Amino acid sequence: MILEQINHANDIKNIDPADYGLLAEEIRAFILEKISRTGGHLASNLGVVELTMALHLAFDLPEDKLIWDVGHQSYTHKILTGRREEFESIRTFRGLSGFPNRRESDCDAFNTGHSSTSISAGLGLAEARDRKGEDFHVVSIIGDGALTGGMAFEALNNASRLKSNFIIVLNDNNMSIAENIGGVSRALTNLRTAPQYNDLKVNVTQVLSQIPGIGDQLVDKISRTKSSIKQLVIPGMLFEDMDLTYLGPVDGYDIPAMVRILEEAKRLNRAVLVHVITKKGKGYLPAEHYPEHFHGVGTFDVATGKSPAKKAPTYTDVFAKVFLGMAEKNPDIVAVTAAMPEGTGLKHFAKRYPDRYYDVGIAEQHAVTFAAGLAAGGLKPYFCVYSSFLQRGFDQVIHDVCIQKLPVTFCLDRSGIVGSDGETHQGIFDLSFLSMIPGMTVMAPKSCYELADMLRFSVNFDGPLAIRYPRGTALAAMKEHRPPIVYGKAEWMYRESDIVLLAVGSMVETAVSVREKLKEDGFSVSLVNARFVSPVDEEMLAEAAENHTLLVTLEENVARGGFGEHVGALCAGKYGGLTVLNIAIPDCYVEHGSVGLLKKELGLDVDSVYAKICQSLNEINEKDLDQS
Amino acid sequence: MILEQINHANDIKNIDPADYGLLAEEIRAFILEKISRTGGHLASNLGVVELTMALHLAFDLPEDKLIWDVGHQSYTHKILTGRREEFESIRTFRGLSGFPNRRESDCDAFNTGHSSTSISAGLGLAEARDRKGEDFHVVSIIGDGALTGGMAFEALNNASRLKSNFIIVLNDNNMSIAENIGGVSRALTNLRTAPQYNDLKVNVTQVLSQIPGIGDQLVDKISRTKSSIKQLVIPGMLFEDMDLTYLGPVDGYDIPAMVRILEEAKRLNRAVLVHVITKKGKGYLPAEHYPEHFHGVGTFDVATGKSPAKKAPTYTDVFAKVFLGMAEKNPDIVAVTAAMPEGTGLKHFAKRYPDRYYDVGIAEQHAVTFAAGLAAGGLKPYFCVYSSFLQRGFDQVIHDVCIQKLPVTFCLDRSGIVGSDGETHQGIFDLSFLSMIPGMTVMAPKSCYELADMLRFSVNFDGPLAIRYPRGTALAAMKEHRPPIVYGKAEWMYRESDIVLLAVGSMVETAVSVREKLKEDGFSVSLVNARFVSPVDEEMLAEAAENHTLLVTLEENVARGGFGEHVGALCAGKYGGLTVLNIAIPDCYVEHGSVGLLKKELGLDVDSVYAKICQSLNEINEKDLDQS
Repeated sequence: MILEQINHANDIKNIDPADYGLLAEEIRAFILEKISRTGGHLASNLGVVELTMALHLAFDLPEDKLIWDVGHQSYTHKILTGRREEFESIRTFRGLSGFPNRRESDCDAFNTGHSSTSISAGLGLAEARDRKGEDFHVVSIIGDGALTGGMAFEALNNASRLKSNFIIVLNDNNMSIAENIGGVSRALTNLRTAPQYNDLKVNVTQVLSQIPGIGDQLVDKISRTKSSIKQLVIPGMLFEDMDLTYLGPVDGYDIPAMVRILEEAKRLNRAVLVHVITKKGKGYLPAEHYPEHFHGVGTFDVATGKSPAKKAPTYTDVFAKVFLGMAEKNPDIVAVTAAMPEGTGLKHFAKRYPDRYYDVGIAEQHAVTFAAGLAAGGLKPYFCVYSSFLQRGFDQVIHDVCIQKLPVTFCLDRSGIVGSDGETHQGIFDLSFLSMIPGMTVMAPKSCYELADMLRFSVNFDGPLAIRYPRGTALAAMKEHRPPIVYGKAEWMYRESDIVLLAVGSMVETAVSVREKLKEDGFSVSLVNARFVSPVDEEMLAEAAENHTLLVTLEENVARGGFGEHVGALCAGKYGGLTVLNIAIPDCYVEHGSVGLLKKELGLDVDSVYAKICQSLNEINEKDLDQS
Repeated sequence: MILEQINHANDIKNIDPADYGLLAEEIRAFILEKISRTGGHLASNLGVVELTMALHLAFDLPEDKLIWDVGHQSYTHKILTGRREEFESIRTFRGLSGFPNRRESDCDAFNTGHSSTSISAGLGLAEARDRKGEDFHVVSIIGDGALTGGMAFEALNNASRLKSNFIIVLNDNNMSIAENIGGVSRALTNLRTAPQYNDLKVNVTQVLSQIPGIGDQLVDKISRTKSSIKQLVIPGMLFEDMDLTYLGPVDGYDIPAMVRILEEAKRLNRAVLVHVITKKGKGYLPAEHYPEHFHGVGTFDVATGKSPAKKAPTYTDVFAKVFLGMAEKNPDIVAVTAAMPEGTGLKHFAKRYPDRYYDVGIAEQHAVTFAAGLAAGGLKPYFCVYSSFLQRGFDQVIHDVCIQKLPVTFCLDRSGIVGSDGETHQGIFDLSFLSMIPGMTVMAPKSCYELADMLRFSVNFDGPLAIRYPRGTALAAMKEHRPPIVYGKAEWMYRESDIVLLAVGSMVETAVSVREKLKEDGFSVSLVNARFVSPVDEEMLAEAAENHTLLVTLEENVARGGFGEHVGALCAGKYGGLTVLNIAIPDCYVEHGSVGLLKKELGLDVDSVYAKICQSLNEINEKDLDQS
């Protein structure tokens, strides 16, 4: 195996160029084999094996800085920088991250996870390099999908001011996570089909740059020239219009050509965009044909591409099914996604109602305000989005939706602990950043039945509303606990005394088990399903506080600004004999790992919660003894 | 006065075209006279008088929808839609808003305030119109500055999919609030100097469209054609590349030409961009020469353009001065602004250290991640930004700065109640949305001296840090209370018993006065300046809770997720005899008005706080009586 000769960064430079093809094949087989057993991002990684090799051939790591936009395509990069042996641990607890991470390797120049950040970060690193008088290259590798994110454009718009080398590699696979969207996509299509002007351009500047003394200056000057003749022949005017130098397109599977164009890009003292054409899933037919399915995938059979039969529907499935039914009855219902038709379950709706479905690309800010416009125009829009990605639209939720009290419903998938995607993707802030917004109603269902009920409740709700539900299997239990949803009212599941558990969404299931354990110990335990995190049911709260000595809140969200703090503050000083215990995610970032393991680690599993309650009860007893 | 004939929307259509020039002059004089007395946005409004008139001539309001990006340039629009007589009340409590507002008039199609939202909202309204089978025009008017905001690009990227009419008017004054930035700006400059291809184009299509039967289809077809000949002669390829139809440029002071091009734009069943060239401050020389100074202005003398001499330095001034001193000593200090060099006080730094100063345009997302890159590269970046605008960079603060623990300092000007700009600009969420982020330190100074101390503290602080301070005059008091800043430690200003006031930043001054009143009533009152909102000084809190019966928190921030809730939750159930009272902004949006008036209205002034505390004390007494 050639791959076994690569144990550190730059080892690839010792490989015989004649073996590049073989090495690429080995890397591809390695990734395929590992990911088929562990799950992970597949299609994007298979697409950039050769591009990554070319980058590692053209640059010196860790001195030069590679910034992988989104970062889920960094597997080959990890393999080429001494992490092959650990690769098996990817995305598991305390194993390798599925994204670049500065703590993991000094070859990871900047953490990524969310889309469209790499050009901004790269510009920052390049400016810092220049100010500090250092000498290395900064390369941001960004997909065409990530280019639809507004902040990538903001950064491109700033790139032209740089007076030193900065390379943007556009990894153009004509596709973000799903299908690519909009005008930029069309412009790129034109580029891809343009005549091969480019090789000529590279050759000319290569020859020029070899003229001693003035060669490099001449190249620089030519790259800044804009003549109408150039406009006729250069593809990439979109970028040249923004005063970036455009090189390409180049075949993303031709390593020597890529190395040549990257060496060319390194010569220019300005921002250069290198346009590389790749294909998601390259080399593995099932992934080439169904790249969205193989974007992020669980275990699968390499021979057939088939994943094991799914056992039970997820919350996403439940949403998808119920939403279709709602949409059938109400023609005003429309749906917006930011490049996540499969992940959010909207693909069924998209198929049935293509003219009521809007995939806006990786553009959460636009998605929110666009939905606000749809609502202002009299429609009933649903923006279906992963919890952590809605962070991108925070200002728009306040400024465009909530100030105007517009009836936009936010369906927040992947709320709470999401598991193997790790710290950038955990949906652990939404209860805080949504509940603080005046006029926003925030709900969380305890089961698949309640998600259905909440979705149906949303249809006639005339205001901003968020429903947050977790990743993974939908809990099909507690069907007997299904009183109608009433605005602002919690659900008393059990009314007893001593201890009251106030649980949000996914934590209701945990609370039920904790309650059983406490009952076995002889306690009398009430259980309330909060349903509404904002507004909190204050009538329920008064009853809970008055009739119990220990009140326990449970939520899969950071403590600060969450449900528990709000409840705690409402109780503070009002109820003399009451002790309040907040169970929430501690003040930290949550790394990758299985959801079960992480919950245990964070103290959110049944045993940990039970133990904390027992400790509280002991403290109360001791206090009582002290006072008696 | 011709202006007096305009009392409702569409009245302008009855004016003799020969009088348009006179009317424009009257409007300009009217705005100048009013704003010189009330303060407000001037330069942008003087720039678009004729453009607004042309829009009102070409469209029917309120049926057609005009969406003003940012919205501070909507004064002429307000005057032309029946709000002339109320205009005097603009930006005052319960008077006209300084921005479009749906509650104010049905001619205001969508609320704005923050930049770059209008295309997204317009697309939403246009799609809703089409789905509902309605027939009207949607027009988004956006400045070239706002076009540097990423979400405008996200929206442009989605505009090409529309199969019906949607008009984007690019109000190009070659300037956002300050100087315009980056590649797009340069591309626009090229357009402005392009040959007048455009009049020809309008005439051709006008003639064609008059051919009965097929004319309109032909126009539509031509507008979609892309030939290399067209590429040679059409300005605006940047937009045509994105598959928008580009019309222009047209002189923003030539009303008939603008009406002609708008009528042309109305014919096309797709997204059309109309490029209008205007000048900020037009017609008033002081504003033409110093548009940034006359962007948002207080009262001034119309004859000279001079504002009354400033009485006392603002927090912005204090920041500016101290920051210069820090920068002098530490060459790693760099500063980032999103188009606000004057508003944030960075203009002095920019002048002294141009190569350490980055104005990235209206691009807060990029600004945050760019700063993260600068920090990762070893520099010490300060992002100086208005509190409400940092909402745009919320995800980036988490994802790029805090997860990586990078030492970016956020200087949040305009925190708390900002006054006359109203609900979109109030900085009343920052304590909540920043304190919830793991690893973020949040501070607030009580006075100008403490701001200086906190800034100096930040230089050696190795992590994400936010310092929030209010708009307006810096409090030059309590100089005797100046113990050194220690990480995470509050300042005990007075240690007594009974009542303890825990105040954040600007509310310390209020707390001092409240304390004096309570002292007069015979109470013993402690006062703590929180200094750190995150992390809260728990040692201080334990002492405060143990040694007092009433604990009062005071902050200029929404209650939910703020300082008080966190303190309340920390105390909940722990301290038997303690009552906690949270003074904060209630769960609502705060409209425009003077800061003093608004604070009173919100219960944050000395008398209101005093009254609430007295009420709490009464309730405690009653409870004690009940129990005794």
